[in-house]
Amino acid sequence: MSPKQIPDIVVGRLPVYLRALSFLAAEGIQVTSSQELGKRLGISAAQIRKDLSHFGEFGKQGTGYNVAFLRDQLKRILKVDREWPVVLIGIGDLGRALAHYGGFVDRGFRIVALFDSDPAKIGQKIGEMEIMSMDKLADVVRERDIQIAMLTVPAVHAQKVAEACLAAGIKSVLNYAPITLKLPDGTHIQHIDPVAHLQRMTHYL
Amino acid sequence: MSPKQIPDIVVGRLPVYLRALSFLAAEGIQVTSSQELGKRLGISAAQIRKDLSHFGEFGKQGTGYNVAFLRDQLKRILKVDREWPVVLIGIGDLGRALAHYGGFVDRGFRIVALFDSDPAKIGQKIGEMEIMSMDKLADVVRERDIQIAMLTVPAVHAQKVAEACLAAGIKSVLNYAPITLKLPDGTHIQHIDPVAHLQRMTHYL
Repeated sequence: MSPKQIPDIVVGRLPVYLRALSFLAAEGIQVTSSQELGKRLGISAAQIRKDLSHFGEFGKQGTGYNVAFLRDQLKRILKVDREWPVVLIGIGDLGRALAHYGGFVDRGFRIVALFDSDPAKIGQKIGEMEIMSMDKLADVVRERDIQIAMLTVPAVHAQKVAEACLAAGIKSVLNYAPITLKLPDGTHIQHIDPVAHLQRMTHYL
Repeated sequence: MSPKQIPDIVVGRLPVYLRALSFLAAEGIQVTSSQELGKRLGISAAQIRKDLSHFGEFGKQGTGYNVAFLRDQLKRILKVDREWPVVLIGIGDLGRALAHYGGFVDRGFRIVALFDSDPAKIGQKIGEMEIMSMDKLADVVRERDIQIAMLTVPAVHAQKVAEACLAAGIKSVLNYAPITLKLPDGTHIQHIDPVAHLQRMTHYL
């Protein structure tokens, strides 16, 4: 079955399964079941079996899933069996925190270039990376064949910066600014807005 | 209709509608339509009308929605027509960035207390808040009647810290650690994991 036919909502759950399987593997667990995964994740076992069935036969009835095998298959399906270079744009507090974050590399991503529009920040170093001026973005993206950008810029600039990313050749944007970006079809965009998550919970309080 | 009957997936979209309406209001726009909102958000107009119909009659056929009125109604439904005090636990790079973030207050939330388990950090100040020891958590939560915690602790500690939060009286947890927490029914939990968002996009690259 072609990946195109997989519902996006299923694709969205695969990273959660992968994360759980990686933890199981790190704990030395070799075999798991849809029941055990479901209990860890708060997702029904039937849902997990149905989601995974889109991609082939990963386990046999009664014998469970081989953790390392299923993890590696999910990495392949999500294409994180390689390392994707990522640009990070907007080096405020959050940008700095992400630049320092050690959790990207072993899950398929490496921040390879930092950009900001503030002349006072350009030239500063974070670790071994120098903060670059936005007018270098297109060259860096082309030279290093980068398809992914993380945006930690103020909301008022986010749309303009996202459009500059696309013009430079970026295909996927992870946006931290609290604004929904309008980007053309064929672009992939994900938003992270902690307040939206908080507001979703207060409805129930 | 009681809020209990609203599908959670609909509740999850309301903060996105509220964010868009707040932007429209800030731009001085007084009337909008499900078509205009849909175009901004990449959601179909029919979906938006259906979602909002769960909560009553917000607009009239042909005249559109009053932006300020609909915004205020969504604030009421999400219960962010007030200010919720929040504790932030784990004052590493990300915790510091969130502690400095100015975008919580005008959307219903205020970080009122910071906690860490590292003796070297306890007593340090961020703005006017002092980082406190975890053994003060229960007292602070009770005294200030706090129901919401944000967790920016390492993955290996997140489950234990979340359980300490619940024991202290917290009802809702926004978890930034890259691990799915197992918490009892009746607790509200949301996860923020940037890598999961990135992995969701690479599938399509």
